Amino acid sequence: MSSDTESTEAETTTDATADGTPDDHGTLYVVGIGPGLPDHMTKRAKEVIESSEVVIASSLYQEFLRDDGTLLPEAETDEDGIAIRDDGFEQEIVRSTMGRQIELARAAFDHVREGKDVAHVSGGDPSVYGKSDLIFKMAEEDDATDIPIEIVPGITAALAGAANVGAPLCNDFCMVSLSDKWRGWDEIEEKLRAAAISDFVIVLYNCWRNYEKAVEIVREERTDDAYVAIVNDAGRADAGRNGESQFVTTLGEAADHDDKVSGMGTSLIIGNHETETWRNDDRTYLVTPRGGRDVDDF
Amino acid sequence: MSSDTESTEAETTTDATADGTPDDHGTLYVVGIGPGLPDHMTKRAKEVIESSEVVIASSLYQEFLRDDGTLLPEAETDEDGIAIRDDGFEQEIVRSTMGRQIELARAAFDHVREGKDVAHVSGGDPSVYGKSDLIFKMAEEDDATDIPIEIVPGITAALAGAANVGAPLCNDFCMVSLSDKWRGWDEIEEKLRAAAISDFVIVLYNCWRNYEKAVEIVREERTDDAYVAIVNDAGRADAGRNGESQFVTTLGEAADHDDKVSGMGTSLIIGNHETETWRNDDRTYLVTPRGGRDVDDF
Repeated sequence: MSSDTESTEAETTTDATADGTPDDHGTLYVVGIGPGLPDHMTKRAKEVIESSEVVIASSLYQEFLRDDGTLLPEAETDEDGIAIRDDGFEQEIVRSTMGRQIELARAAFDHVREGKDVAHVSGGDPSVYGKSDLIFKMAEEDDATDIPIEIVPGITAALAGAANVGAPLCNDFCMVSLSDKWRGWDEIEEKLRAAAISDFVIVLYNCWRNYEKAVEIVREERTDDAYVAIVNDAGRADAGRNGESQFVTTLGEAADHDDKVSGMGTSLIIGNHETETWRNDDRTYLVTPRGGRDVDDF
Repeated sequence: MSSDTESTEAETTTDATADGTPDDHGTLYVVGIGPGLPDHMTKRAKEVIESSEVVIASSLYQEFLRDDGTLLPEAETDEDGIAIRDDGFEQEIVRSTMGRQIELARAAFDHVREGKDVAHVSGGDPSVYGKSDLIFKMAEEDDATDIPIEIVPGITAALAGAANVGAPLCNDFCMVSLSDKWRGWDEIEEKLRAAAISDFVIVLYNCWRNYEKAVEIVREERTDDAYVAIVNDAGRADAGRNGESQFVTTLGEAADHDDKVSGMGTSLIIGNHETETWRNDDRTYLVTPRGGRDVDDF
Protein backbone atom coordinates (compact mmCIF):
# COMPACT_ATOMS: atom_id res chain seq x y z
CA MET A 1 0.00 0.00 0.00
CA SER A 2 1.09 3.56 -0.55
CA SER A 3 3.51 4.96 1.94
CA ASP A 4 3.71 8.20 0.00
CA THR A 5 3.42 10.93 2.58
CA GLU A 6 1.60 13.13 0.10
CA SER A 7 -1.29 10.72 0.29
CA THR A 8 -1.63 11.30 3.99
CA GLU A 9 -2.77 14.82 3.36
CA ALA A 10 -5.84 13.74 1.48
CA GLU A 11 -8.96 15.17 3.00
CA THR A 12 -12.15 13.44 2.06
CA THR A 13 -15.73 14.49 2.42
CA THR A 14 -18.75 12.31 3.11
CA ASP A 15 -19.59 12.22 -0.51
CA ALA A 16 -16.15 10.91 -1.32
CA THR A 17 -17.19 8.47 -4.00
CA ALA A 18 -18.66 11.29 -6.04
CA ASP A 19 -15.23 12.20 -7.42
CA GLY A 20 -13.02 10.19 -9.68
CA THR A 21 -15.11 7.03 -10.00
CA PRO A 22 -16.28 6.08 -13.46
CA ASP A 23 -20.03 6.65 -13.69
CA ASP A 24 -20.56 3.17 -15.04
CA HIS A 25 -19.28 1.53 -11.85
CA GLY A 26 -21.27 0.29 -8.91
CA THR A 27 -19.97 0.28 -5.36
CA LEU A 28 -18.55 -2.56 -3.29
CA TYR A 29 -20.17 -2.32 0.14
CA VAL A 30 -18.74 -4.24 3.06
CA VAL A 31 -21.78 -4.39 5.29
CA GLY A 32 -21.91 -5.18 8.99
CA ILE A 33 -25.27 -6.66 9.98
CA GLY A 34 -24.56 -6.75 13.71
CA PRO A 35 -24.86 -9.83 15.90
CA GLY A 36 -27.21 -11.66 13.61
CA LEU A 37 -30.92 -11.24 13.82
CA PRO A 38 -32.20 -8.15 11.97
CA ASP A 39 -33.16 -6.42 15.22
CA HIS A 40 -29.66 -5.13 15.70
CA MET A 41 -29.02 -4.30 12.05
CA THR A 42 -28.95 -0.64 11.09
CA LYS A 43 -31.33 0.92 8.60
CA ARG A 44 -28.36 1.73 6.36
CA ALA A 45 -27.16 -1.90 6.33
CA LYS A 46 -30.65 -3.15 5.48
CA GLU A 47 -31.09 -0.62 2.67
CA VAL A 48 -27.70 -1.39 1.16
CA ILE A 49 -28.39 -5.14 1.16
CA GLU A 50 -31.87 -4.71 -0.28
CA SER A 51 -30.68 -2.45 -3.09
CA SER A 52 -27.54 -4.34 -4.13
CA GLU A 53 -27.61 -6.43 -7.32
CA VAL A 54 -25.25 -8.97 -5.73
CA VAL A 55 -25.26 -10.06 -2.07
CA ILE A 56 -22.42 -12.22 -0.76
CA ALA A 57 -23.18 -13.84 2.60
CA SER A 58 -22.57 -17.05 4.54
CA SER A 59 -25.39 -19.55 4.98
CA LEU A 60 -25.91 -18.42 8.58
CA TYR A 61 -26.15 -14.73 7.68
CA GLN A 62 -28.44 -15.51 4.73
CA GLU A 63 -30.72 -17.26 7.20
CA PHE A 64 -30.72 -14.21 9.50
CA LEU A 65 -31.37 -11.83 6.60
CA ARG A 66 -34.32 -13.91 5.41
CA ASP A 67 -35.84 -13.69 8.87
CA ASP A 68 -37.24 -10.19 8.33
CA GLY A 69 -37.44 -10.20 4.54
CA THR A 70 -34.18 -8.34 3.89
CA LEU A 71 -33.46 -11.25 1.54
CA LEU A 72 -36.16 -13.21 -0.29
CA PRO A 73 -36.91 -16.73 1.03
CA GLU A 74 -34.65 -19.50 -0.22
CA ALA A 75 -37.63 -21.10 -1.96
CA GLU A 76 -37.89 -18.05 -4.21
CA THR A 77 -34.24 -18.17 -5.17
CA ASP A 78 -33.35 -20.26 -8.24
CA GLU A 79 -30.45 -22.72 -8.51
CA ASP A 80 -28.10 -19.97 -9.70
CA GLY A 81 -28.93 -17.95 -6.59
CA ILE A 82 -31.06 -15.44 -8.47
CA ALA A 83 -34.06 -13.97 -6.64
CA ILE A 84 -36.55 -11.62 -8.28
CA ARG A 85 -38.46 -9.23 -6.06
CA ASP A 86 -42.06 -8.17 -6.56
CA ASP A 87 -40.91 -4.89 -8.08
CA GLY A 88 -38.84 -6.81 -10.63
CA PHE A 89 -35.49 -6.07 -9.00
CA GLU A 90 -33.17 -9.00 -9.68
CA GLN A 91 -30.69 -9.97 -7.01
CA GLU A 92 -27.96 -12.59 -7.06
CA ILE A 93 -27.37 -14.23 -3.67
CA VAL A 94 -23.89 -15.74 -3.43
CA ARG A 95 -22.97 -18.16 -0.68
CA SER A 96 -19.73 -17.13 0.98
CA THR A 97 -17.46 -19.80 2.44
CA MET A 98 -14.06 -19.52 4.10
CA GLY A 99 -12.07 -21.08 1.28
CA ARG A 100 -13.53 -18.87 -1.46
CA GLN A 101 -12.65 -15.40 -0.15
CA ILE A 102 -10.17 -14.46 -2.91
CA GLU A 103 -12.38 -15.78 -5.69
CA LEU A 104 -15.42 -13.96 -4.28
CA ALA A 105 -13.56 -10.67 -3.93
CA ARG A 106 -12.33 -10.85 -7.54
CA ALA A 107 -15.83 -11.65 -8.75
CA ALA A 108 -17.14 -8.72 -6.70
CA PHE A 109 -14.70 -6.35 -8.46
CA ASP A 110 -16.00 -7.59 -11.83
CA HIS A 111 -19.61 -7.04 -10.80
CA VAL A 112 -18.81 -3.49 -9.69
CA ARG A 113 -17.15 -2.82 -13.05
CA GLU A 114 -20.34 -4.04 -14.74
CA GLY A 115 -22.19 -1.29 -12.88
CA LYS A 116 -23.60 -3.44 -10.09
CA ASP A 117 -23.65 -2.65 -6.40
CA VAL A 118 -22.30 -5.55 -4.36
CA ALA A 119 -23.04 -6.08 -0.65
CA HIS A 120 -20.39 -8.23 1.00
CA VAL A 121 -22.05 -9.18 4.29
CA SER A 122 -20.08 -9.41 7.51
CA GLY A 123 -21.39 -10.34 10.94
CA GLY A 124 -21.00 -7.70 13.66
CA ASP A 125 -18.90 -4.81 12.41
CA PRO A 126 -16.93 -5.45 9.20
CA SER A 127 -13.74 -4.07 10.73
CA VAL A 128 -13.73 -5.83 14.08
CA TYR A 129 -12.06 -9.08 13.10
CA GLY A 130 -14.28 -8.95 10.01
CA LYS A 131 -13.79 -8.90 6.27
CA SER A 132 -12.91 -5.34 5.42
CA ASP A 133 -9.12 -5.56 5.55
CA LEU A 134 -9.30 -8.54 3.19
CA ILE A 135 -11.25 -6.52 0.63
CA PHE A 136 -8.67 -3.72 0.68
CA LYS A 137 -5.76 -6.19 0.46
CA MET A 138 -7.44 -7.88 -2.51
CA ALA A 139 -8.02 -4.54 -4.20
CA GLU A 140 -4.34 -3.70 -3.72
CA GLU A 141 -3.19 -7.08 -5.04
CA ASP A 142 -5.36 -6.67 -8.14
CA ASP A 143 -4.52 -3.00 -8.60
CA ALA A 144 -8.27 -2.42 -8.51
CA THR A 145 -8.06 1.32 -7.87
CA ASP A 146 -11.21 1.87 -9.93
CA ILE A 147 -13.45 0.09 -7.38
CA PRO A 148 -15.31 2.38 -4.95
CA ILE A 149 -15.39 0.70 -1.54
CA GLU A 150 -17.72 1.71 1.26
CA ILE A 151 -17.81 0.20 4.73
CA VAL A 152 -21.18 0.09 6.52
CA PRO A 153 -20.60 -0.23 10.27
CA GLY A 154 -22.48 -2.68 12.49
CA ILE A 155 -22.94 -3.56 16.16
CA THR A 156 -19.93 -5.63 17.15
CA ALA A 157 -20.18 -8.53 19.62
CA ALA A 158 -18.54 -6.53 22.41
CA LEU A 159 -21.33 -3.96 22.37
CA ALA A 160 -24.14 -6.49 22.04
CA GLY A 161 -22.64 -8.69 24.75
CA ALA A 162 -22.05 -5.73 27.05
CA ALA A 163 -25.67 -4.61 26.62
CA ASN A 164 -26.83 -8.10 27.62
CA VAL A 165 -24.95 -7.96 30.91
CA GLY A 166 -25.50 -4.28 31.75
CA ALA A 167 -22.84 -1.62 31.44
CA PRO A 168 -19.39 -3.18 31.76
CA LEU A 169 -17.74 -1.02 29.07
CA CYS A 170 -18.39 2.39 30.60
CA ASN A 171 -14.70 3.13 31.01
CA ASP A 172 -11.76 2.55 28.63
CA PHE A 173 -11.75 -0.91 27.11
CA CYS A 174 -9.94 -2.95 24.50
CA MET A 175 -10.61 -5.86 22.21
CA VAL A 176 -8.17 -8.74 21.87
CA SER A 177 -8.68 -11.66 19.52
CA LEU A 178 -7.39 -15.02 20.75
CA SER A 179 -6.99 -16.31 17.23
CA ASP A 180 -3.33 -17.00 16.55
CA LYS A 181 -3.91 -17.88 12.92
CA TRP A 182 -2.30 -14.68 11.61
CA ARG A 183 0.18 -13.92 14.39
CA GLY A 184 2.10 -15.48 17.20
CA TRP A 185 0.76 -16.00 20.69
CA ASP A 186 3.57 -13.74 21.96
CA GLU A 187 1.87 -10.73 20.42
CA ILE A 188 -1.49 -11.68 21.93
CA GLU A 189 0.10 -12.23 25.31
CA GLU A 190 1.90 -8.87 25.23
CA LYS A 191 -1.37 -7.04 24.55
CA LEU A 192 -3.29 -8.96 27.18
CA ARG A 193 -0.65 -8.23 29.78
CA ALA A 194 -0.44 -4.52 28.94
CA ALA A 195 -4.22 -4.18 29.02
CA ALA A 196 -4.44 -6.07 32.32
CA ILE A 197 -1.75 -3.99 34.02
CA SER A 198 -3.12 -0.65 32.85
CA ASP A 199 -6.65 -1.57 33.97
CA PHE A 200 -8.55 -1.65 30.71
CA VAL A 201 -11.78 -3.59 30.63
CA ILE A 202 -10.83 -6.39 28.21
CA VAL A 203 -13.12 -8.01 25.67
CA LEU A 204 -11.84 -11.30 24.26
CA TYR A 205 -12.95 -12.42 20.80
CA ASN A 206 -12.49 -15.88 19.32
CA CYS A 207 -12.67 -17.41 22.77
CA TRP A 208 -12.96 -20.96 21.59
CA ARG A 209 -9.22 -20.73 21.15
CA ASN A 210 -7.10 -20.75 24.26
CA TYR A 211 -9.42 -18.77 26.46
CA GLU A 212 -8.11 -20.47 29.61
CA LYS A 213 -4.57 -19.44 28.60
CA ALA A 214 -5.69 -15.84 28.20
CA VAL A 215 -7.43 -15.88 31.57
CA GLU A 216 -4.26 -17.18 33.22
CA ILE A 217 -2.22 -14.31 31.80
CA VAL A 218 -4.70 -11.70 33.00
CA ARG A 219 -4.82 -13.40 36.43
CA GLU A 220 -1.09 -12.78 36.81
CA GLU A 221 -1.78 -9.03 36.69
CA ARG A 222 -5.25 -8.69 38.26
CA THR A 223 -6.97 -9.86 41.42
CA ASP A 224 -8.99 -13.08 41.25
CA ASP A 225 -12.17 -11.33 42.35
CA ALA A 226 -12.35 -9.19 39.19
CA TYR A 227 -15.68 -9.82 37.48
CA VAL A 228 -15.93 -11.66 34.18
CA ALA A 229 -18.92 -12.11 31.89
CA ILE A 230 -19.07 -15.00 29.45
CA VAL A 231 -21.50 -14.00 26.71
CA ASN A 232 -22.73 -16.26 23.94
CA ASP A 233 -24.45 -15.36 20.67
CA ALA A 234 -25.41 -11.90 21.93
CA GLY A 235 -28.35 -10.49 20.00
CA ARG A 236 -29.21 -13.81 18.41
CA ALA A 237 -31.86 -15.07 20.84
CA ASP A 238 -32.48 -18.75 20.02
CA ALA A 239 -31.33 -18.37 16.44
CA GLY A 240 -27.60 -18.55 17.05
CA ARG A 241 -25.51 -21.64 16.92
CA ASN A 242 -25.99 -22.28 20.62
CA GLY A 243 -28.52 -19.73 21.78
CA GLU A 244 -27.99 -16.41 23.52
CA SER A 245 -26.80 -16.55 27.12
CA GLN A 246 -24.68 -14.66 29.63
CA PHE A 247 -22.96 -15.83 32.73
CA VAL A 248 -21.23 -13.71 35.34
CA THR A 249 -18.27 -15.16 37.21
CA THR A 250 -14.87 -14.02 38.48
CA LEU A 251 -11.41 -14.04 36.97
CA GLY A 252 -10.32 -16.70 39.45
CA GLU A 253 -13.11 -19.03 38.36
CA ALA A 254 -13.53 -18.14 34.69
CA ALA A 255 -11.24 -20.89 33.41
CA ASP A 256 -13.38 -23.49 35.20
CA HIS A 257 -16.41 -22.64 33.11
CA ASP A 258 -15.40 -23.96 29.72
CA ASP A 259 -18.88 -25.46 29.45
CA LYS A 260 -20.12 -21.86 29.04
CA VAL A 261 -17.73 -21.15 26.14
CA SER A 262 -19.74 -22.48 23.28
CA GLY A 263 -17.77 -21.53 20.19
CA MET A 264 -17.27 -18.73 17.69
CA GLY A 265 -20.14 -16.73 19.17
CA THR A 266 -18.54 -16.48 22.63
CA SER A 267 -16.89 -13.37 24.03
CA LEU A 268 -15.43 -12.79 27.47
CA ILE A 269 -15.69 -9.40 29.12
CA ILE A 270 -13.11 -9.02 31.87
CA GLY A 271 -13.93 -6.13 34.21
CA ASN A 272 -11.37 -3.73 35.64
CA HIS A 273 -10.86 -2.98 39.35
CA GLU A 274 -13.93 -0.72 39.38
CA THR A 275 -16.33 -3.17 37.74
CA GLU A 276 -19.13 -4.15 40.10
CA THR A 277 -22.22 -6.30 40.09
CA TRP A 278 -25.68 -4.96 40.73
CA ARG A 279 -28.70 -7.13 41.38
CA ASN A 280 -32.30 -6.21 40.97
CA ASP A 281 -35.36 -8.43 41.29
CA ASP A 282 -34.73 -9.88 37.83
CA ARG A 283 -31.05 -10.53 37.45
CA THR A 284 -27.42 -9.61 38.01
CA TYR A 285 -25.84 -6.83 35.96
CA LEU A 286 -22.19 -5.91 35.49
CA VAL A 287 -21.36 -2.19 35.68
CA THR A 288 -18.11 -0.24 35.33
CA PRO A 289 -18.64 3.25 36.72
CA ARG A 290 -16.19 5.76 35.24
CA GLY A 291 -13.46 6.79 37.64
CA GLY A 292 -15.51 5.15 40.36
CA ARG A 293 -17.90 8.04 40.02
CA ASP A 294 -20.82 8.29 42.33
CA VAL A 295 -24.28 9.72 41.98
CA ASP A 296 -23.22 12.94 43.71
CA ASP A 297 -20.74 13.53 40.87
CA PHE A 298 -23.46 14.14 38.32
CA MET B 1 -23.07 -2.53 44.56
CA SER B 2 -23.13 -6.13 45.64
CA SER B 3 -19.81 -7.80 46.11
CA ASP B 4 -21.52 -10.95 47.30
CA THR B 5 -19.81 -13.79 45.49
CA GLU B 6 -23.06 -15.75 45.39
CA SER B 7 -24.41 -13.19 43.01
CA THR B 8 -21.63 -13.90 40.55
CA GLU B 9 -23.09 -17.31 39.85
CA ALA B 10 -26.31 -15.94 38.50
CA GLU B 11 -27.01 -17.20 35.04
CA THR B 12 -29.51 -15.20 33.09
CA THR B 13 -31.35 -16.02 29.94
CA THR B 14 -32.35 -13.69 27.13
CA ASP B 15 -35.79 -13.38 28.57
CA ALA B 16 -34.35 -12.29 31.88
CA THR B 17 -36.95 -9.65 32.61
CA ALA B 18 -39.67 -12.28 32.55
CA ASP B 19 -38.86 -13.35 36.10
CA GLY B 20 -39.26 -11.44 39.28
CA THR B 21 -40.51 -8.13 37.91
CA PRO B 22 -43.92 -6.96 39.03
CA ASP B 23 -46.31 -7.24 36.09
CA ASP B 24 -47.46 -3.67 36.59
CA HIS B 25 -44.01 -2.24 35.84
CA GLY B 26 -42.68 -0.97 32.55
CA THR B 27 -39.03 -1.20 31.53
CA LEU B 28 -36.31 1.43 31.58
CA TYR B 29 -34.48 1.18 28.27
CA VAL B 30 -31.15 2.88 27.81
CA VAL B 31 -31.08 3.16 24.04
CA GLY B 32 -28.10 3.81 21.80
CA ILE B 33 -29.12 5.51 18.57
CA GLY B 34 -25.68 5.39 16.97
CA PRO B 35 -23.82 8.40 15.59
CA GLY B 36 -26.93 10.47 15.08
CA LEU B 37 -28.93 10.35 11.91
CA PRO B 38 -31.39 7.44 11.85
CA ASP B 39 -29.42 5.67 9.09
CA HIS B 40 -27.11 4.10 11.62
CA MET B 41 -29.77 3.37 14.23
CA THR B 42 -30.79 -0.26 14.70
CA LYS B 43 -34.30 -1.54 14.15
CA ARG B 44 -34.47 -2.48 17.83
CA ALA B 45 -33.53 1.05 18.97
CA LYS B 46 -36.15 2.58 16.68
CA GLU B 47 -38.86 0.21 17.86
CA VAL B 48 -38.09 0.79 21.53
CA ILE B 49 -38.20 4.58 21.12
CA GLU B 50 -41.41 4.45 19.10
CA SER B 51 -43.18 2.22 21.61
CA SER B 52 -42.08 3.92 24.86
CA GLU B 53 -44.54 6.13 26.72
CA VAL B 54 -41.71 8.42 27.80
CA VAL B 55 -38.65 9.37 25.71
CA ILE B 56 -35.78 11.24 27.35
CA ALA B 57 -33.37 12.78 24.83
CA SER B 58 -31.19 15.85 24.33
CA SER B 59 -32.29 18.53 21.86
CA LEU B 60 -29.74 17.32 19.31
CA TYR B 61 -30.89 13.70 19.49
CA GLN B 62 -34.55 14.75 19.38
CA GLU B 63 -33.73 16.57 16.16
CA PHE B 64 -32.08 13.45 14.72
CA LEU B 65 -34.99 11.24 15.78
CA ARG B 66 -37.53 13.57 14.15
CA ASP B 67 -35.60 13.33 10.90
CA ASP B 68 -37.12 9.97 9.94
CA GLY B 69 -40.30 10.16 11.99
CA THR B 70 -39.09 8.07 14.94
CA LEU B 71 -40.37 11.01 16.99
CA LEU B 72 -43.26 13.24 15.93
CA PRO B 73 -42.37 16.76 14.69
CA GLU B 74 -41.86 19.41 17.36
CA ALA B 75 -44.89 21.28 16.02
CA GLU B 76 -47.09 18.33 16.99
CA THR B 77 -45.75 18.24 20.54
CA ASP B 78 -47.56 20.38 23.12
CA GLU B 79 -45.91 22.62 25.72
CA ASP B 80 -45.75 19.74 28.22
CA GLY B 81 -43.83 17.67 25.68
CA ILE B 82 -46.79 15.41 24.93
CA ALA B 83 -47.13 14.10 21.38
CA ILE B 84 -50.09 12.00 20.23
CA ARG B 85 -49.57 9.68 17.28
CA ASP B 86 -52.13 8.93 14.60
CA ASP B 87 -52.95 5.63 16.30
CA GLY B 88 -53.70 7.49 19.55
CA PHE B 89 -50.49 6.44 21.28
CA GLU B 90 -49.48 9.20 23.67
CA GLN B 91 -45.81 9.88 24.17
CA GLU B 92 -44.07 12.29 26.52
CA ILE B 93 -40.86 13.73 25.10
CA VAL B 94 -38.53 14.97 27.83
CA ARG B 95 -35.58 17.21 27.07
CA SER B 96 -32.43 15.86 28.69
CA THR B 97 -29.73 18.31 29.77
CA MET B 98 -26.43 17.71 31.55
CA GLY B 99 -27.46 19.23 34.88
CA ARG B 100 -30.68 17.24 35.21
CA GLN B 101 -29.36 13.67 35.04
CA ILE B 102 -30.26 12.66 38.60
CA GLU B 103 -33.69 14.25 38.49
CA LEU B 104 -34.45 12.61 35.13
CA ALA B 105 -33.33 9.18 36.31
CA ARG B 106 -35.54 9.41 39.42
CA ALA B 107 -38.51 10.52 37.33
CA ALA B 108 -37.82 7.61 34.96
CA PHE B 109 -38.01 5.13 37.87
CA ASP B 110 -41.40 6.59 38.83
CA HIS B 111 -42.69 6.28 35.27
CA VAL B 112 -41.59 2.64 35.14
CA ARG B 113 -43.43 1.98 38.42
CA GLU B 114 -46.56 3.48 36.86
CA GLY B 115 -46.31 0.83 34.16
CA LYS B 116 -44.70 2.96 31.47
CA ASP B 117 -41.80 2.03 29.26
CA VAL B 118 -39.14 4.73 29.27
CA ALA B 119 -36.51 5.17 26.55
CA HIS B 120 -33.46 7.05 27.81
CA VAL B 121 -31.68 7.98 24.59
CA SER B 122 -27.91 7.95 24.32
CA GLY B 123 -25.81 8.85 21.31
CA GLY B 124 -23.56 6.09 19.94
CA ASP B 125 -23.60 3.10 22.26
CA PRO B 126 -25.02 3.71 25.76
CA SER B 127 -22.03 2.02 27.38
CA VAL B 128 -19.17 3.64 25.52
CA TYR B 129 -18.76 6.81 27.58
CA GLY B 130 -22.55 6.96 27.55
CA LYS B 131 -25.33 7.03 30.13
CA SER B 132 -25.78 3.43 31.20
CA ASP B 133 -23.45 3.39 34.22
CA LEU B 134 -25.25 6.47 35.55
CA ILE B 135 -28.61 4.69 35.39
CA PHE B 136 -27.28 1.70 37.35
CA LYS B 137 -25.58 3.94 39.93
CA MET B 138 -28.84 5.88 40.36
CA ALA B 139 -30.82 2.65 40.74
CA GLU B 140 -28.34 1.54 43.41
CA GLU B 141 -28.50 4.88 45.23
CA ASP B 142 -32.30 4.74 45.26
CA ASP B 143 -32.46 1.05 46.08
CA ALA B 144 -34.61 0.73 42.97
CA THR B 145 -34.26 -3.03 42.62
CA ASP B 146 -37.80 -3.27 41.24
CA ILE B 147 -36.89 -1.42 38.02
CA PRO B 148 -36.17 -3.67 35.01
CA ILE B 149 -33.33 -2.12 33.02
CA GLU B 150 -32.47 -3.05 29.46
CA ILE B 151 -29.58 -1.69 27.43
CA VAL B 152 -30.06 -1.40 23.66
CA PRO B 153 -26.66 -1.26 21.95
CA GLY B 154 -25.76 1.21 19.22
CA ILE B 155 -22.97 2.00 16.75
CA THR B 156 -20.27 3.80 18.70
CA ALA B 157 -18.19 6.61 17.16
CA ALA B 158 -15.12 4.38 16.80
CA LEU B 159 -16.98 2.03 14.46
CA ALA B 160 -18.67 4.80 12.45
CA GLY B 161 -15.43 6.76 12.19
CA ALA B 162 -13.45 3.67 11.21
CA ALA B 163 -15.97 2.85 8.49
CA ASN B 164 -15.56 6.37 7.10
CA VAL B 165 -11.81 5.96 6.70
CA GLY B 166 -11.73 2.31 5.62
CA ALA B 167 -10.64 -0.54 7.86
CA PRO B 168 -8.27 0.75 10.55
CA LEU B 169 -9.67 -1.43 13.37
CA CYS B 170 -9.06 -4.84 11.81
CA ASN B 171 -6.66 -5.87 14.52
CA ASP B 172 -6.84 -5.42 18.32
CA PHE B 173 -7.80 -1.91 19.35
CA CYS B 174 -8.72 0.07 22.41
CA MET B 175 -10.74 3.11 23.33
CA VAL B 176 -9.40 5.81 25.62
CA SER B 177 -11.36 8.86 26.68
CA LEU B 178 -9.35 12.04 27.15
CA SER B 179 -11.89 13.45 29.57
CA ASP B 180 -10.27 13.88 32.97
CA LYS B 181 -13.50 14.94 34.63
CA TRP B 182 -13.87 11.67 36.58
CA ARG B 183 -10.24 10.62 36.95
CA GLY B 184 -6.73 11.91 36.93
CA TRP B 185 -4.64 12.40 33.82
CA ASP B 186 -2.14 9.87 35.28
CA GLU B 187 -4.62 7.07 34.67
CA ILE B 188 -5.26 8.22 31.11
CA GLU B 189 -1.54 8.51 30.45
CA GLU B 190 -0.83 5.03 31.83
CA LYS B 191 -3.42 3.48 29.51
CA LEU B 192 -2.24 5.45 26.49
CA ARG B 193 1.34 4.41 27.10
CA ALA B 194 0.50 0.73 27.63
CA ALA B 195 -1.64 0.69 24.48
CA ALA B 196 1.05 2.45 22.45
CA ILE B 197 3.84 0.11 23.58
CA SER B 198 1.84 -3.06 23.01
CA ASP B 199 0.77 -1.91 19.52
CA PHE B 200 -2.97 -1.58 19.89
CA VAL B 201 -4.77 0.61 17.39
CA ILE B 202 -5.96 3.42 19.68
CA VAL B 203 -9.23 5.31 19.35
CA LEU B 204 -9.38 8.53 21.33
CA TYR B 205 -12.74 9.89 22.50
CA ASN B 206 -13.41 13.37 23.86
CA CYS B 207 -10.59 14.77 21.77
CA TRP B 208 -11.46 18.36 22.35
CA ARG B 209 -9.65 17.88 25.65
CA ASN B 210 -5.89 17.61 25.58
CA TYR B 211 -5.59 15.74 22.33
CA GLU B 212 -2.15 17.19 21.63
CA LYS B 213 -0.99 15.93 25.04
CA ALA B 214 -2.27 12.43 24.22
CA VAL B 215 -0.54 12.48 20.85
CA GLU B 216 2.75 13.47 22.49
CA ILE B 217 2.55 10.50 24.88
CA VAL B 218 1.89 8.06 22.07
CA ARG B 219 4.74 9.61 20.04
CA GLU B 220 7.16 8.70 22.81
CA GLU B 221 6.36 5.02 22.18
CA ARG B 222 5.61 4.90 18.44
CA THR B 223 7.28 6.08 15.25
CA ASP B 224 6.21 9.43 13.85
CA ASP B 225 5.15 7.90 10.54
CA ALA B 226 2.30 5.91 12.14
CA TYR B 227 -0.98 6.87 10.49
CA VAL B 228 -3.66 8.83 12.27
CA ALA B 229 -7.21 9.59 11.19
CA ILE B 230 -9.07 12.58 12.60
CA VAL B 231 -12.79 11.89 12.19
CA ASN B 232 -15.58 14.33 12.91
CA ASP B 233 -19.28 13.71 13.38
CA ALA B 234 -19.08 10.27 11.71
CA GLY B 235 -22.45 9.16 10.38
CA ARG B 236 -24.00 12.59 10.73
CA ALA B 237 -23.45 13.96 7.22
CA ASP B 238 -24.19 17.72 7.32
CA ALA B 239 -26.48 17.36 10.35
CA GLY B 240 -23.80 17.24 13.01
CA ARG B 241 -22.47 20.15 14.93
CA ASN B 242 -19.69 20.73 12.41
CA GLY B 243 -20.40 18.32 9.58
CA GLU B 244 -18.93 14.90 8.88
CA SER B 245 -15.31 14.83 7.77
CA GLN B 246 -12.21 12.68 7.96
CA PHE B 247 -8.59 13.59 7.58
CA VAL B 248 -5.62 11.24 7.38
CA THR B 249 -2.29 12.39 8.74
CA THR B 250 0.64 10.94 10.72
CA LEU B 251 1.41 10.76 14.41
CA GLY B 252 4.26 13.22 13.94
CA GLU B 253 1.94 15.79 12.41
CA ALA B 254 -1.36 15.08 14.17
CA ALA B 255 -0.85 17.72 16.88
CA ASP B 256 -0.45 20.39 14.19
CA HIS B 257 -3.97 19.84 12.92
CA ASP B 258 -6.04 21.21 15.77
CA ASP B 259 -8.15 22.98 13.15
CA LYS B 260 -9.48 19.52 12.26
CA VAL B 261 -10.50 18.75 15.85
CA SER B 262 -13.89 20.33 15.94
CA GLY B 263 -15.33 19.35 19.31
CA MET B 264 -17.29 16.62 21.05
CA GLY B 265 -17.90 14.80 17.78
CA THR B 266 -14.19 14.29 17.07
CA SER B 267 -12.34 11.00 17.46
CA LEU B 268 -8.75 10.19 16.62
CA ILE B 269 -7.80 6.75 15.31
CA ILE B 270 -4.10 6.07 15.80
CA GLY B 271 -2.90 3.18 13.66
CA ASN B 272 -0.45 0.52 14.80
CA HIS B 273 2.81 -0.41 13.04
CA GLU B 274 0.87 -2.40 10.43
CA THR B 275 -1.66 0.28 9.55
CA GLU B 276 -1.28 1.37 5.93
CA THR B 277 -2.92 3.76 3.52
CA TRP B 278 -4.50 2.67 0.28
CA ARG B 279 -5.53 5.02 -2.47
CA ASN B 280 -8.03 4.40 -5.18
CA ASP B 281 -9.36 6.81 -7.78
CA ASP B 282 -11.69 8.35 -5.20
CA ARG B 283 -9.86 8.75 -1.94
CA THR B 284 -7.38 7.53 0.63
CA TYR B 285 -8.32 4.72 3.00
CA LEU B 286 -6.65 3.55 6.19
CA VAL B 287 -6.30 -0.23 6.61
CA THR B 288 -4.86 -2.42 9.37
CA PRO B 289 -4.30 -5.92 7.99
CA ARG B 290 -4.29 -8.52 10.74
CA GLY B 291 -0.83 -9.85 11.51
CA GLY B 292 0.33 -8.16 8.33
CA ARG B 293 -1.55 -10.86 6.48
CA ASP B 294 -1.36 -10.97 2.75
CA VAL B 295 -3.75 -12.12 0.09
CA ASP B 296 -2.00 -15.47 -0.18
CA ASP B 297 -2.90 -16.15 3.45
CA PHE B 298 -6.58 -16.45 2.68
